[in-house]
Amino acid sequence: MAPQLQNFYQTVDSLAEPFIDRLRKAVAIPSISAEEERRPDVIKMGHWLKEQLEGLGAHMEARELGPQPHKEHLTLPPAIIGRYPAQKDPSKRTILVYGHYDVQPANLSDGWATEPFELSVDDKGRMYGRGSTDDKGPVLGWLNVIESHKKAGIEFPVNLLMCFEGMEEYGSEGLDDFIIAECKPGKFFEDADAVCISDNYWLGTEKPCLTYGLRGCSYYSIEISGPGQDLHSGVFGGTAQEPMTDLVRVLGSLVDTDGNIQIEGIKELVAPLTKEEESLYTNIAFNMDNLYESLGSKTGIFPDKERTLMGRWRYPSLSLHGVEGAFSAPGAKTVIPAKVTGKFSIRTVPNMEPEDVDKLVYAHVDKVFKSLKSKNKINCYLQHAGKWWVASPKHWNFTAAAKAVEDVWHTKPDLTREGGSIPVTLTFEQATGKNVLLLPMGSSTDAAHSINEKLDRRNYIEGIKLLGAYLHYVAEEPMEG
Amino acid sequence: MAPQLQNFYQTVDSLAEPFIDRLRKAVAIPSISAEEERRPDVIKMGHWLKEQLEGLGAHMEARELGPQPHKEHLTLPPAIIGRYPAQKDPSKRTILVYGHYDVQPANLSDGWATEPFELSVDDKGRMYGRGSTDDKGPVLGWLNVIESHKKAGIEFPVNLLMCFEGMEEYGSEGLDDFIIAECKPGKFFEDADAVCISDNYWLGTEKPCLTYGLRGCSYYSIEISGPGQDLHSGVFGGTAQEPMTDLVRVLGSLVDTDGNIQIEGIKELVAPLTKEEESLYTNIAFNMDNLYESLGSKTGIFPDKERTLMGRWRYPSLSLHGVEGAFSAPGAKTVIPAKVTGKFSIRTVPNMEPEDVDKLVYAHVDKVFKSLKSKNKINCYLQHAGKWWVASPKHWNFTAAAKAVEDVWHTKPDLTREGGSIPVTLTFEQATGKNVLLLPMGSSTDAAHSINEKLDRRNYIEGIKLLGAYLHYVAEEPMEG
Repeated sequence: MAPQLQNFYQTVDSLAEPFIDRLRKAVAIPSISAEEERRPDVIKMGHWLKEQLEGLGAHMEARELGPQPHKEHLTLPPAIIGRYPAQKDPSKRTILVYGHYDVQPANLSDGWATEPFELSVDDKGRMYGRGSTDDKGPVLGWLNVIESHKKAGIEFPVNLLMCFEGMEEYGSEGLDDFIIAECKPGKFFEDADAVCISDNYWLGTEKPCLTYGLRGCSYYSIEISGPGQDLHSGVFGGTAQEPMTDLVRVLGSLVDTDGNIQIEGIKELVAPLTKEEESLYTNIAFNMDNLYESLGSKTGIFPDKERTLMGRWRYPSLSLHGVEGAFSAPGAKTVIPAKVTGKFSIRTVPNMEPEDVDKLVYAHVDKVFKSLKSKNKINCYLQHAGKWWVASPKHWNFTAAAKAVEDVWHTKPDLTREGGSIPVTLTFEQATGKNVLLLPMGSSTDAAHSINEKLDRRNYIEGIKLLGAYLHYVAEEPMEG
Repeated sequence: MAPQLQNFYQTVDSLAEPFIDRLRKAVAIPSISAEEERRPDVIKMGHWLKEQLEGLGAHMEARELGPQPHKEHLTLPPAIIGRYPAQKDPSKRTILVYGHYDVQPANLSDGWATEPFELSVDDKGRMYGRGSTDDKGPVLGWLNVIESHKKAGIEFPVNLLMCFEGMEEYGSEGLDDFIIAECKPGKFFEDADAVCISDNYWLGTEKPCLTYGLRGCSYYSIEISGPGQDLHSGVFGGTAQEPMTDLVRVLGSLVDTDGNIQIEGIKELVAPLTKEEESLYTNIAFNMDNLYESLGSKTGIFPDKERTLMGRWRYPSLSLHGVEGAFSAPGAKTVIPAKVTGKFSIRTVPNMEPEDVDKLVYAHVDKVFKSLKSKNKINCYLQHAGKWWVASPKHWNFTAAAKAVEDVWHTKPDLTREGGSIPVTLTFEQATGKNVLLLPMGSSTDAAHSINEKLDRRNYIEGIKLLGAYLHYVAEEPMEG
């Protein structure tokens, strides 16, 4: 039986201005996790959030995460965790939601059209401000859902567990261990039945989506060294083997212009494309102009949207990021660098096991370097690896969300993956053993991490309705599956 | 008839301590041309030099060179020019000598064992101090030659023209135009019969050399651009053609590990090796351990000294210097750079005309890039070019210097070239139309431009004798040739 949500929706509409005002107050706290001097603002933001939720009747805790690794003089902002209603109702499902209350750096002088820490709403309802879409809007979405239920006198449909962190834009320092610990028996998150994360974006601007996959990332360095120190190319050019000559040849062997990875065995690790999966891409609300607009050029690899989406979501890619140790400034310098380190990463997909990828990378680099017959030394190593994540979109967590989208937006959501990583997703999946859903609020034009970040008023208000509807549909889903 | 120089040599020996004291005073003035705040010291050094020479009876002028290009608030240090004896003797040859009175930067904290601007003489006679060998020692050599002649009552054998600059370590700003102007009829340097520059080094530590050739340098940039801005490799990897992928492939096509330039047509521009020239390399005082010591490794291209010296002096080389616009810091950043610029240079030799080299480079880069079938844009251009220089070592300027070496050092000098450039050499040759000799004072271990720069007492004192003897032998050389 479909839940009756008209009363809830009307209440959200009637509270739109207070909800925008709540976002304005949140944006005004410059909770920049990457800037040391803003750390007090990040902590202030965490406590503001806790107080707001306590005001709504939630049970809240601020959990200290200790000193910041490698910057021991800094205290990590607390994980703000909570439960609503404060007392668990064992007859209802329990949904764990995650968001972050820290933001990227922002200065007016970077090119913002308005003060980044003053929410500025234009006549088209675009609400500009740092953190508006990433991730204060979505986090406040959950608060507004609670408040709307209280004001409308509607019984809350689930037990809500909350986990809000303040270091997401700086590598989520300290969070993984905390999540793993709190998901264990007897701990705060132990009874989560599913997880919902609202910290990504629609593929375009018109159609909502549910995200069920992320690529992983294995990041490598290739270090080549020879001379004892940097050399003058006039004196040594033509007499010494140069590490940079070797490096560009090794880097040039990894991938071609059209993105085909040249490392033997990589393609064989990729899960084959099934007919069923292939058919999914055709209906996704995306076109090549969307790509060209975001690229700022027409230098795409594929001429069609299907292969472009598969290139982003379900196939691996290899990007060369740069070279450390060589001359990188403007102008001309006649140096022969003594030691150069090339950096590249591979975006991984099912069924690529990171360890298998490592082995193939090392074997390839070794083979190419040996073919150069160089006297220089090479060292290829992994800097870090994060695994890909794919959830089942047939799980009740997703079917509930899809029904909520239809009810609020009157359209079926696209089922999408993302090319990048959100490492906390995999952590929640592994720590809870439960299904994780990515349920975005903002759209592709929101410019998270850029100047003039914004959240559309429509996406905020309808997004609040969507988060609430999702919880009601979750409550209605059959218990099996 | 060989000149009788015993009296001159004995006088130099008797004045050794005052000459070292003169060097001490010069080193104490930190005339660093690259540091704005040291500019007054550079100018002070120029005037100190002028006053010293005036004290010896020379006619001296400090010629202003105007404001520094691109740094108009800075005044260039003057060119200190002079003539000794003050009145020209038309019956004698006129020799134009060049040196520089500015020095490289130096700080004790860079790793110097002694204060860089206090001359420190150890028990092996190594005189440490910034500028000791580059180029204050050689410049003061000419002063000491004049003083020794005066003290010994020996008639000066030639008319000496002097040109000492204060910006050599910062690109000789303003000097080229000045030299060209002053070599014109009626101007200060018009009557030079030959040029002698003492601003380079022996190939080793035991055997003096005369240098008759320098390689040129053509420095190129290859700029490849595609996206409108840097991209996130998670979102765009696998969907966009990446400029960095194209760049490493183009750079990798230019040269191989053993230094073979892969650009079609370059080898054909190089003057063929004659039997006569080939035989010259065998007797040069140089061995592979010298190379390995200066490289700090055994990563040389050739196993023998002959091919190593030819690789440095008489064949072109191509070095890859680095990449601008890519990620170059330590750590990991998952960026797809939107625009990357590869930098490389070719050391040129006879008979490579710079314009011909440009054409071959552009054609090669164009061909390789076209083969990639990339949608990115490429732009390859020359940053700067300096031509190679080769003088005739059979000219009287060289034969006189060779006889002087034999008289002072009791050995025939090596006839050497250098792999790097000293652009002022070509300027003097072209402006005077006369033979230019490079007559070094210091040895290969002097560490010019490095920490713990030094000049051996023996090289300084015997070097003063050598400069004086050279002028006497110049006076004796037959007028033809």
